[in-house]
Amino acid sequence: MKLYEKVAHAIEERIEQSFYQAGEKLPSIRALSLTHEVSISTAQEAYRLLEDQGWVESRPKSGFYVVNRQKAPQQLPDLSRPTQTPIEVSQWEEVLNLLCASTTADIVQLSRAIPDLEAPTLKPLMRIMSDLNKHGGGSILSYEDLRGADCLRLQIARLMVDSGCRLHPDDIITTAGCQEALSASLRAVTQQDDVVAVDSPSFYGSLQAIKALGLKALEIPTHPETGISIEALELAMEQWPVKAILITPTCNNPLGYTMPVEHKQRLLELTSRYDIPIIEDDIYGDLSYTSPRPPSIKSFDTEGRVLLCSSFSKSLAPGLRIGWVAPGRYVNQVMHMKYVVTASTPTLPQHGIAEFIAQGGYERHIRKMRAKYHQSRDVMIGWVEKYFPKGTKISYPQGGFLLWVELPTDIDTVELNQRTMKRGVSIAPGVLFSASGKYRNCMRLNFTDKPSEKNENAIKQVATCIQEMVSELT
Amino acid sequence: MKLYEKVAHAIEERIEQSFYQAGEKLPSIRALSLTHEVSISTAQEAYRLLEDQGWVESRPKSGFYVVNRQKAPQQLPDLSRPTQTPIEVSQWEEVLNLLCASTTADIVQLSRAIPDLEAPTLKPLMRIMSDLNKHGGGSILSYEDLRGADCLRLQIARLMVDSGCRLHPDDIITTAGCQEALSASLRAVTQQDDVVAVDSPSFYGSLQAIKALGLKALEIPTHPETGISIEALELAMEQWPVKAILITPTCNNPLGYTMPVEHKQRLLELTSRYDIPIIEDDIYGDLSYTSPRPPSIKSFDTEGRVLLCSSFSKSLAPGLRIGWVAPGRYVNQVMHMKYVVTASTPTLPQHGIAEFIAQGGYERHIRKMRAKYHQSRDVMIGWVEKYFPKGTKISYPQGGFLLWVELPTDIDTVELNQRTMKRGVSIAPGVLFSASGKYRNCMRLNFTDKPSEKNENAIKQVATCIQEMVSELT
Ligand SMILES: Cc1ncc(COP(=O)(O)O)c(C=O)c1O
Ligand SMILES: Cc1ncc(COP(=O)(O)O)c(C=O)c1O
Repeated sequence: MKLYEKVAHAIEERIEQSFYQAGEKLPSIRALSLTHEVSISTAQEAYRLLEDQGWVESRPKSGFYVVNRQKAPQQLPDLSRPTQTPIEVSQWEEVLNLLCASTTADIVQLSRAIPDLEAPTLKPLMRIMSDLNKHGGGSILSYEDLRGADCLRLQIARLMVDSGCRLHPDDIITTAGCQEALSASLRAVTQQDDVVAVDSPSFYGSLQAIKALGLKALEIPTHPETGISIEALELAMEQWPVKAILITPTCNNPLGYTMPVEHKQRLLELTSRYDIPIIEDDIYGDLSYTSPRPPSIKSFDTEGRVLLCSSFSKSLAPGLRIGWVAPGRYVNQVMHMKYVVTASTPTLPQHGIAEFIAQGGYERHIRKMRAKYHQSRDVMIGWVEKYFPKGTKISYPQGGFLLWVELPTDIDTVELNQRTMKRGVSIAPGVLFSASGKYRNCMRLNFTDKPSEKNENAIKQVATCIQEMVSELT
Repeated sequence: MKLYEKVAHAIEERIEQSFYQAGEKLPSIRALSLTHEVSISTAQEAYRLLEDQGWVESRPKSGFYVVNRQKAPQQLPDLSRPTQTPIEVSQWEEVLNLLCASTTADIVQLSRAIPDLEAPTLKPLMRIMSDLNKHGGGSILSYEDLRGADCLRLQIARLMVDSGCRLHPDDIITTAGCQEALSASLRAVTQQDDVVAVDSPSFYGSLQAIKALGLKALEIPTHPETGISIEALELAMEQWPVKAILITPTCNNPLGYTMPVEHKQRLLELTSRYDIPIIEDDIYGDLSYTSPRPPSIKSFDTEGRVLLCSSFSKSLAPGLRIGWVAPGRYVNQVMHMKYVVTASTPTLPQHGIAEFIAQGGYERHIRKMRAKYHQSRDVMIGWVEKYFPKGTKISYPQGGFLLWVELPTDIDTVELNQRTMKRGVSIAPGVLFSASGKYRNCMRLNFTDKPSEKNENAIKQVATCIQEMVSELT
């Protein structure tokens, strides 16, 4: 790290730790040079870097200020009101359409949950893997241990300390992405026709897993800032034979909230009373805008009741297909499912990622991505407020790169997506996130990309299509 | 390729095509030099190479001869006599023991079905993947199409022409290994508690998938040379509500047989009459010692009734975790299962393998491996006949690298394995291949490695342990 990068990094950390608050004036260049014992030009370079990275802004004739984050959107979505009866999940056709939609380069994809894959901080990982391919020898081509590579499980155990979990590497099983972790966990704790309670709206991959495994979904009202309603869940559990709870409590997809710690604890107590497992999807946890990241439910679990599922698909890259599950007391069932479903997890990327983490590359990358997504969230919310119809409700994500938008009028976002596609923009229609086709007037947009004219234009295109449809209604 | 290698290669091909038969005298060095228009020393070098590779042997004062292949073993195993009632699969503990057994370098692993991973013909694949990691850019890091990479599906469709299948790339879905193909297929055509008919002995991964998905196995008597008994299967289907048939008809694991074409056709007719799908595991098909390889059952299927499952785990390397399924009429169900279980198949290795096949590297590698395994089969059979007790029955594999051995006395091979492990050799106990713990006096050995003193010694160690146990019996 160059000297000016070190100085910049020190300031960045203080901003992250809220030592310097949003909008606050920062030390002058001269003061910076004095406290850090560097030259004036190094101090200047440090501020320039921080400006590039979007941490600070310079105000002419005044100095440097911590960037003022967007305030929460004017109007958040309402508490969701799903069916509250166990139902068979539908919407597979709609999910399939999204998954198989054209991905040509000229389409701005606001639909898929794909992280920034061009980040320079990923390059060292690619280099490590390239070298492994060249010099790794036969062992890198063989089946990996059923539980996963030792070196990677060790590093994952270390990463999980950040979320408050103290796990032994042997408590962790690596998987082909978080999706395998979720479906193996579901299979491990349920039988055909069982009822699984979920937050709502909910990640469509989880809902479809519930469907494909012959289970029923029980959707629970969910608050856009605090997550699943514990009261509603308790009522539902009194009424229905719930066999498991599947939620994404930290940096939720699609709503972006992080459940308050106290809610997480209450949820755990509730399931303890009913002796029910929680499948906790933590895939966006490391992308929380706050540092240190929020604790997982798993971190409070003393009974081995929580199956924590995650992956590197959002923090690094989904094409690697490396995830993990910490299945607590269900380890034997999960291991059996993992074996019969994929036998073992790809060998080389496990070793590559382990090395990348060990070298400090993961932490560096995550720090950059957090800051980047945090910034583009604010820009994105600004655009949606500016271009979408009055009365549009917008989520206020606490991490990750996904925004949930609820339109004021009864517009079908499946049709909206067909229209925007013609204009080179894809969105994720709200119905995908419901077991029964609700949220028809909602959509999910990603803000992975650095804000650009192209992306602002894409939002304008969506807005234009909305206007078209509104005027056709009246 | 050097000149002498070219000449050697030409002869190798003629041997492979049976133009020169086993035991036949080959052209003299002088004749070779004349027909190929090369120097005497080049012709000599060519023969030396062929000798090294085990294709030819020189007999002093007489010349060069095509190596005489081992005749079929003295005694083949009997037709198997499994339970013939639908049962819950047991033996998970035993499988887990095998999967988690120590894999330190000083153990000769005769237990696992791992191909030769040090072959020089794999090097170009590693180079391609190394370059992709370096220069592939962001797209190589993203989710691949749900069906799999177009380029790879095209190449797989081409490869499958060798087995008599004419498929469109869109008829193929790539998977995380053959194991995912098998379990997705099983889930696609069955419901909890359904009965699945299998050959017996059977690959333990399939049996455990049947168990984990809540299905029952119906094991059908199987002949060590012709495979599943069609008569016994028909009787069983009259008696039980069989919902699917899962078999490995070509280069079977563990028995090594290839079902005669006519049996494959009769099996297909039978299932057509009962309107039942066949899950055909073809993972060792390309490693058949005959060239061209035998046709798959799928190649005769005009009704979309066969779900063909395969992977590159035995032909290239298992750590890549790239397989595929051609699910016929069950494509929608399989695609749904594939999505919820792993979402998508690792991106980079799909592109790497596609490029490797396109460059001709796959064919080159397979040709070498076929010849190599063919040769070590014969050496291995020779060793087992020499060192194991009289009356030992041995399979006669028609492809792949796995041998099935049935001991004449009632020795428990689970215990045998514990003893051989102490002497640095692992074997696969027969009970793993049965749903109900049969084949206790059988074992599976691999002959992946080039025959060496070390491996001969390993077989001697196993033989010694057998003798120990026999003498303790009496
Ligand atoms: C909440 C959530 N869980 C799981 C997944 C699947 O992750 P992976 O690609 O690691 O299987 C996703 C991907 O979109 C997701 O958003
Ligand atoms: C007959 C058979 N089918 C399937 C598999 C699993 O293959 P993969 O490693 O591609 O999942 C194996 C591996 O041993 C096998 O022998």
